[in-house]
Amino acid sequence: MRALWLEDRVLGARGDVPRPASPPGEALVRVTLAGVCNTDLELVKGYYPFTGVPGHEFVGEVVSAEAAEWVGRRVVGEINASCGACATCRAGRRTHCPARTVLGIKGRHGSMAEFLTLPIENLHAVPDAVPDEVAVFTEPVAAALEVQRQVAIDAGARVVVVGDGKLGQLVARTLALAGRRPTVVGRHPRKLALLQRLGIATVAGGDVPPCEADVVVECTGNPDGLALARAAVRPRGTIVLKSTYHGGAPLNLSGIVVDEVTLVGSRCGPFAPALALLAGGALEVADMVDQRFALHDGFAAFAAAGAPGVLKVLITP
Amino acid sequence: MRALWLEDRVLGARGDVPRPASPPGEALVRVTLAGVCNTDLELVKGYYPFTGVPGHEFVGEVVSAEAAEWVGRRVVGEINASCGACATCRAGRRTHCPARTVLGIKGRHGSMAEFLTLPIENLHAVPDAVPDEVAVFTEPVAAALEVQRQVAIDAGARVVVVGDGKLGQLVARTLALAGRRPTVVGRHPRKLALLQRLGIATVAGGDVPPCEADVVVECTGNPDGLALARAAVRPRGTIVLKSTYHGGAPLNLSGIVVDEVTLVGSRCGPFAPALALLAGGALEVADMVDQRFALHDGFAAFAAAGAPGVLKVLITP
Repeated sequence: MRALWLEDRVLGARGDVPRPASPPGEALVRVTLAGVCNTDLELVKGYYPFTGVPGHEFVGEVVSAEAAEWVGRRVVGEINASCGACATCRAGRRTHCPARTVLGIKGRHGSMAEFLTLPIENLHAVPDAVPDEVAVFTEPVAAALEVQRQVAIDAGARVVVVGDGKLGQLVARTLALAGRRPTVVGRHPRKLALLQRLGIATVAGGDVPPCEADVVVECTGNPDGLALARAAVRPRGTIVLKSTYHGGAPLNLSGIVVDEVTLVGSRCGPFAPALALLAGGALEVADMVDQRFALHDGFAAFAAAGAPGVLKVLITP
Repeated sequence: MRALWLEDRVLGARGDVPRPASPPGEALVRVTLAGVCNTDLELVKGYYPFTGVPGHEFVGEVVSAEAAEWVGRRVVGEINASCGACATCRAGRRTHCPARTVLGIKGRHGSMAEFLTLPIENLHAVPDAVPDEVAVFTEPVAAALEVQRQVAIDAGARVVVVGDGKLGQLVARTLALAGRRPTVVGRHPRKLALLQRLGIATVAGGDVPPCEADVVVECTGNPDGLALARAAVRPRGTIVLKSTYHGGAPLNLSGIVVDEVTLVGSRCGPFAPALALLAGGALEVADMVDQRFALHDGFAAFAAAGAPGVLKVLITP
């Protein structure tokens, strides 16, 4: 099949990648649309030593599955494939299964290909009313919702979202829909304008009041963002860390102790409420789609996704 | 008056320090016993640029105060003197008042002297049944209790305390009294034996099972302790940071995100329950007193407190 292929931090388009075989319990899915995430860009930079087909955001159609009722269904899929049997899985933390594979990230070929496989239990049927261009956002919307699953945010809390990129947009938009009033810190007038149009407050980095935010969500994926989050949070406030990136970030831990700040790492989130939000129509995402590329233009797609000012880039196999 | 004096990271004993004047609302306290804390040792190392009388652990007797009923009382005192008027104070976070002074740490001379001053509202009367050698532990016991105030720890949680020193001892002992079952990681057989005698489990650093602890409390004050805590905590677990120290500590924040670990900075705690615990007699602390020094031997006291294997060192003015 045709697929993008990442090896030794080099990304290329190939026509000779074997179609994945679906083991028992897994479905074969024909990918109809894939999204480029910052994690994909970080993989190319060497964030994690992955070899294979990248991509973990997708919408597709089930081609084959033991459970016949799934065949032909349009689906999105949770990206962590867990063992289901270990202590971590049994404790309800399946996304942290130590034996897990992760679509397009760890031990499992991803969505930037004609086909992928995932366990049936990972699939969620997409309602007919949700177009592919919207359904493909389910995974990042779920990641945005994870913030609210982890941290109880008071209705009147002062919430700052650092970063106006893909994840910052979704975190701010889902917080606003939940009745919170986030202020987004960003550098890109066009991205900030999208938020302003939705009634979400924005501010330039230099204008964030220090030590006032009850909750800060760091979505920039760079050390500057962390420094800004640290400066913005109040004593006994919370910083939610959403970014995974290659390389380190300096953080004065004694300052964290003195100010009794809480840091919460936050990764994958719940698909069902994400899909419900998208199906309900209240969460706008279509305005975030900037460019589309064919699979054989994958290299250009990654270059576009990494360019300043660009939000979501989609790939059509 | 006689006092220890810290200036340009040099500690000395002086006989010519002016007795502190107590402004309105503050009491003058004659110090009867002071304790040496790791933060005092870190101040000498340059953790924070403090000039003046060090020390924040003490028990003493009120010599003068506007409120006559306090005069003659034996007291301990909360170390943060707050404005009471700012937004932080009004929000109930007085220990984080940005205008605060901190006894022997920031903008206020400390307890390693014949006299100190503190706001009346900071004082707590010591019950007659509590000897000085026990009451002097009120401040560090309060700091240990802050862990339980910040993090809800399930009765069956797997709790690891990293560090068998002064703070690790008190964190583990207070957790055990609250019905939790901490395991303490340490390097000093004598310190671990004190815990074992109290029925608290101990383990050597190399024997901590990885990724299993629900809650880890880091009390070592060094980067090795943080690394051990990070290795011990399970995905979605919590690391409580109790140590303030000079210098940085490496921490892979992407790993914190992927494993959705929560880090909680933890500093000063509630005095009233600490004093109640000490007065009740269930919390043993007398076994932690290793050495006593006179004020003029302050340099030797600090050297003793910093030696491996030593727990609490007390100073008698």
